[in-house]
Amino acid sequence: MSRVAYVNGRYIRHAAAGVSIDDRAFLFADGIYEVIEVFDGRLIDEEGHLLRLARSAAQLRLTLPMAATALRRILRELVARNRVTDGHVYLQVTRGAAKRDHGFPKPGTPSTVVAFAHRGDRAAAEARAHAGIKVISLPDIRWKRPDIKTTSLLPNVLAKQQAKEAGAYEAWLVDADGFVTEGSSSNAWIVDSAGVLVTHPADSAILAGITRARLLKIAAARGLKIVERPFTLAEAFRAQEAFISGATTIVLPVVAIDGQNIGSGAPGAVALGLRASFHEFAPATA
Amino acid sequence: MSRVAYVNGRYIRHAAAGVSIDDRAFLFADGIYEVIEVFDGRLIDEEGHLLRLARSAAQLRLTLPMAATALRRILRELVARNRVTDGHVYLQVTRGAAKRDHGFPKPGTPSTVVAFAHRGDRAAAEARAHAGIKVISLPDIRWKRPDIKTTSLLPNVLAKQQAKEAGAYEAWLVDADGFVTEGSSSNAWIVDSAGVLVTHPADSAILAGITRARLLKIAAARGLKIVERPFTLAEAFRAQEAFISGATTIVLPVVAIDGQNIGSGAPGAVALGLRASFHEFAPATA
Repeated sequence: MSRVAYVNGRYIRHAAAGVSIDDRAFLFADGIYEVIEVFDGRLIDEEGHLLRLARSAAQLRLTLPMAATALRRILRELVARNRVTDGHVYLQVTRGAAKRDHGFPKPGTPSTVVAFAHRGDRAAAEARAHAGIKVISLPDIRWKRPDIKTTSLLPNVLAKQQAKEAGAYEAWLVDADGFVTEGSSSNAWIVDSAGVLVTHPADSAILAGITRARLLKIAAARGLKIVERPFTLAEAFRAQEAFISGATTIVLPVVAIDGQNIGSGAPGAVALGLRASFHEFAPATA
Repeated sequence: MSRVAYVNGRYIRHAAAGVSIDDRAFLFADGIYEVIEVFDGRLIDEEGHLLRLARSAAQLRLTLPMAATALRRILRELVARNRVTDGHVYLQVTRGAAKRDHGFPKPGTPSTVVAFAHRGDRAAAEARAHAGIKVISLPDIRWKRPDIKTTSLLPNVLAKQQAKEAGAYEAWLVDADGFVTEGSSSNAWIVDSAGVLVTHPADSAILAGITRARLLKIAAARGLKIVERPFTLAEAFRAQEAFISGATTIVLPVVAIDGQNIGSGAPGAVALGLRASFHEFAPATA
């Protein structure tokens, strides 16, 4: 079975799917996106993701060319056509194709909509969670609006690659004041030495993760002490636990940062507990 | 006559030219580019641009899939096929198309090469230079490596659009210390109140403009006093002249910044003089 993608109104073979060389995302990183988990054939926290897409569009004054209902229909069609039980759907909207010029194209230029699906491997993901992941720290050199989910991801690419080459799964980005903002494609969390769940506030320095928000609710319901505040690397080294979150990773325990064990050096109970209860609480829509 | 573009080995109708939805530049802004002026059918400062492309590639560990000789051949073919007398050629290289994952694709993934040409309007450009342009100032919110010429241009897009909407041609970006780094798509210059030509040093805070480097040589040959140092907006307001430079603009005098006249409020003699002698000194290759 060949994979099927969606491009501007058509479902086509993924391998043959293309966009114009004049597309604003190709030339200028002038696009936004969302990744939504598919679990048991259902879309997880879809409403949150589509609301964030609308916010990203508003921040960049980029027109979403269709209502959320139409986007939902496309995502379902991709899940069905690609027979995805567990995996992800990816949705990208760009400012369209126009003669290259930094300023916005003339009003009425149609946005580009691209969507596709990936099948995941639930067993492999579970194994990774129970082994725990390693993280390295790097300076946060991104632009000042990582709260907008744009395709302007080159610094994230470079950080993730550096992590891979260091034998780690993720890079934690550290700002000029020494605080961990987030990972290159995930939010960063610790259970500090006092047992408090800590993660950076959802201000303009980080992406307000949909999975992050869901985990905060689950943690609150479980009676965990939670503080949204920046934490330093030094604090992370002293933490009882550390973990990352995101739509593609849900929760992955961090067992080492920069080669130094966190806690016992094994996945922590809070992280594994949040992971285990995530799909029980996160809204899943068919 | 329809425009012709180059994509991965083929010359095709520009309007039909496309890249994969999995292209790294489309998904991650993982690409580099150059814009080279065509003047009287010749490529201006081509060697400098191709050397900078090689540097950008090295900085990002992106493989250029062909030697400079082959790239030169493509650019010439585009000039010929599009019958460009005055205008520009655009060349972009990306890390290729691969299943979406932040880290680099597996070794051997072919880079994407896209190139196209635009015809320009020399008379309109001259008229703009003799009228002078207006500039607004905005905070520099870009990532910390604007010295690499990447397609990660979203903050530049937003700045240019804000300039346009304010009735200006360019936005000058001001760093956290109050210094003007450069424009959204050009380098920034002043002739300060003492008559010294001043522009930001070519460090990691700005793109080392090829036109900028050429103008520094021409200015030195003309015996102008030159200092490469950061300058503040306040200094720019007191300056005798201000101007921008770039491969698409060469030199455009700035007559107002944030609504305040610079010097007499008319294009300055140094700017116009540098512009007038540029093509006499810049290497042009057929």
